[in-house]
Amino acid sequence: MSTRLQIAPKGPEFSRIVLGLWRLSAWQMSPAERVQFLHAALDLGITTIDQADIYGDYTSELLLGETFALAPELRSRFQIVTKCGIQFPSTQRPHQQAHIYNTSAAHIIASAENSLRSMRIEKIDLLLIHRPDPLMNADEIAEAFSQLQRAGKVSYFGVSNFSPAQFEMLASRFPLVTNQVECSLLHQVPIYDGSFDLCQRLRVVPMVWSALAGGRLFSDQTPQSQRLQTCLSGIAEELGVSVSCVAIAWILHLPSQPMVLTGSSRVKVLVETVQALDCQLSRDQWFDLWRAATGAELP
Amino acid sequence: MSTRLQIAPKGPEFSRIVLGLWRLSAWQMSPAERVQFLHAALDLGITTIDQADIYGDYTSELLLGETFALAPELRSRFQIVTKCGIQFPSTQRPHQQAHIYNTSAAHIIASAENSLRSMRIEKIDLLLIHRPDPLMNADEIAEAFSQLQRAGKVSYFGVSNFSPAQFEMLASRFPLVTNQVECSLLHQVPIYDGSFDLCQRLRVVPMVWSALAGGRLFSDQTPQSQRLQTCLSGIAEELGVSVSCVAIAWILHLPSQPMVLTGSSRVKVLVETVQALDCQLSRDQWFDLWRAATGAELP
Amino acid sequence: MSTRLQIAPKGPEFSRIVLGLWRLSAWQMSPAERVQFLHAALDLGITTIDQADIYGDYTSELLLGETFALAPELRSRFQIVTKCGIQFPSTQRPHQQAHIYNTSAAHIIASAENSLRSMRIEKIDLLLIHRPDPLMNADEIAEAFSQLQRAGKVSYFGVSNFSPAQFEMLASRFPLVTNQVECSLLHQVPIYDGSFDLCQRLRVVPMVWSALAGGRLFSDQTPQSQRLQTCLSGIAEELGVSVSCVAIAWILHLPSQPMVLTGSSRVKVLVETVQALDCQLSRDQWFDLWRAATGAELP
Repeated sequence: MSTRLQIAPKGPEFSRIVLGLWRLSAWQMSPAERVQFLHAALDLGITTIDQADIYGDYTSELLLGETFALAPELRSRFQIVTKCGIQFPSTQRPHQQAHIYNTSAAHIIASAENSLRSMRIEKIDLLLIHRPDPLMNADEIAEAFSQLQRAGKVSYFGVSNFSPAQFEMLASRFPLVTNQVECSLLHQVPIYDGSFDLCQRLRVVPMVWSALAGGRLFSDQTPQSQRLQTCLSGIAEELGVSVSCVAIAWILHLPSQPMVLTGSSRVKVLVETVQALDCQLSRDQWFDLWRAATGAELP
Repeated sequence: MSTRLQIAPKGPEFSRIVLGLWRLSAWQMSPAERVQFLHAALDLGITTIDQADIYGDYTSELLLGETFALAPELRSRFQIVTKCGIQFPSTQRPHQQAHIYNTSAAHIIASAENSLRSMRIEKIDLLLIHRPDPLMNADEIAEAFSQLQRAGKVSYFGVSNFSPAQFEMLASRFPLVTNQVECSLLHQVPIYDGSFDLCQRLRVVPMVWSALAGGRLFSDQTPQSQRLQTCLSGIAEELGVSVSCVAIAWILHLPSQPMVLTGSSRVKVLVETVQALDCQLSRDQWFDLWRAATGAELP
Repeated sequence: MSTRLQIAPKGPEFSRIVLGLWRLSAWQMSPAERVQFLHAALDLGITTIDQADIYGDYTSELLLGETFALAPELRSRFQIVTKCGIQFPSTQRPHQQAHIYNTSAAHIIASAENSLRSMRIEKIDLLLIHRPDPLMNADEIAEAFSQLQRAGKVSYFGVSNFSPAQFEMLASRFPLVTNQVECSLLHQVPIYDGSFDLCQRLRVVPMVWSALAGGRLFSDQTPQSQRLQTCLSGIAEELGVSVSCVAIAWILHLPSQPMVLTGSSRVKVLVETVQALDCQLSRDQWFDLWRAATGAELP
């Protein structure tokens, strides 16, 4: 399986496994540990980082910025994805009084500029609208994207958690290179609601979050999860890999070629995740997992 | 907020608040009162009238025609929207035996010509297919639209209550300038089912009916309505406007820029509705209303 | 109603009533009876045959091949539709261990070539992907289709049971001429889920399977079926035709002009099915059946 993907015709290559820094602040690493962690990711071929302004109550980008300041050689070796468009009350953002979506041009531009400062970088490789905002004006968003691109502040743009109709609407005004959506054996929605069909049609590479359903894939005691645990274990044993490796390979085999986020701080887990790129599931195995997940027979 | 919208690139301007004459016959106005009512609407900047062949058991267009006959100066000051495609038994239509949809070319043309006669006008500004007909043949409808347009009988065409797939199907054969759909704080379907996304994508202006959910917004005793009533009252008080003004402003803020129908005979209500055009809701207020309506937190 | 349809701009004409050979092996006809049966179909104007590799546990195509060998004059008088993409364990396919979908180029090509050998024909007129495969790669499928077409082995391509999003995805890479879907008075899904709207938009002719809901339309004792039986009987009596004729005419009247599969071995049933082509339902009758089926009034 290809370990890197070009996200746009002349665009940069991203690693298919993406380092999710959603919980960076919760990991409570020392600055030196963070440097070490990023080096470990690079050593595994994980060169793409996923961030958002709001992660860690608006602190995750700051911590990454500190890490880059400490080890400036790291920056150029990563592609940085970050997001904007959600606001909520936070001591980090004293002027925000309510939890809202904000896709005004002013907010998008201010948020991107703030992300640059927080992460201490010159350019965001990929900026995503975090959630579909019922108030999003496609022309206004396109104008903000265009300004950020012309100013050299952001290279590419995409969205997250958008429906196909929302994606096509915004894509009619500005080229989008990804839709980052939730997908796992426990949450197959984008396989069936047209999201991945649209990605394939438009040659857009999706990104997947919560590929292990936040761990529920292995901890839940529902009949569905138990069927899946049995099936995953069997295949993992056959192939001599971990169960999480199999669960991630199941997603990597989708024809829209999703990139997959990892959310762990443990290098051991990153290793297993990257191994999924070498884990060739047969069609029989893939559909066995499908059956275990759905509890149904194929029509 | 813009108070008038151009419905097609070189098309006429419509007022964003549209005078719905659905219940014109039920209002039991004298002819002189109807003239007065239309003048009051014009004075408020409401220059667009919404009609349908079937309204008032096929009498509403006739009553409007009487009014134009009485005050011929009124006609040229209004843009007239009417609809066709529904048939039901009525003493006004003795040949109709059943409740059906009819989008045959013959019926569309006959219905439009009948609407012209009933309303005593030379031209319909905008003719809508009232409901999606499972038997609608896009080529046949396009041919009927084309004939009516060439004959100078109808200027523009649209639909009502169409799904995105139905809209795209008919729009593939003939340019449509609107989809008139139900939308309110109690019925947010077109915000999420792709209808408004498609409108924005195709730069088509939607029209909204039942913006106050037929009054249920203020009379229902459900937990949802009670949450909304509290939230609406709070914002109305802050802004010094009526609750219905706030509820309509919530729709006018949608980025697809919907036109909104009013269905009232009371000039006081028209005044409040028009005030919604000046009612600037903050994003915080808009999302407070969203939360009250859905009973959910934003993801 | 047109009894034949051109399936592509310069494509061949198919008969609107299509001979479904799904249960050919179950019918236990002698070879001579099969020849007779095909002649009877031709005499009724049914010139299109629907097959699939898997029908009759992979034996239906073989039986048709035997019939063509016995009566070689028959082949040129039929258009042959067959399908590929499903695999399941069978004594006929000892290497298949699991029930899976397989839309790999290798499988599509091998399956088509095998269908040619089984049916003892030189060319498949129309090859369909039988079910939407979550693993289908549009580029790979298009490449397989293209190879088969260039090699003169298959003339046209389509799909079966695809959602609109899946159809548009594959159609973005290779022209598809049909989507064969389930539709009946008891299963109106493709009328409302955008499937038939997309067909009409793209000028693609759908094919319909299970037009009589596998007979449940006449045997079920649910309130829905009983309402339908009463309504069908009334109309059948008025028109002097059979109830199944009316039920099929209801589908033939849809504006996407579906072809309809018949699944019976009885010539009497084929006769009734073909009669549906001459059965003109009024809009009143069509909507009476709609009402009986849905148990609802038109909005």
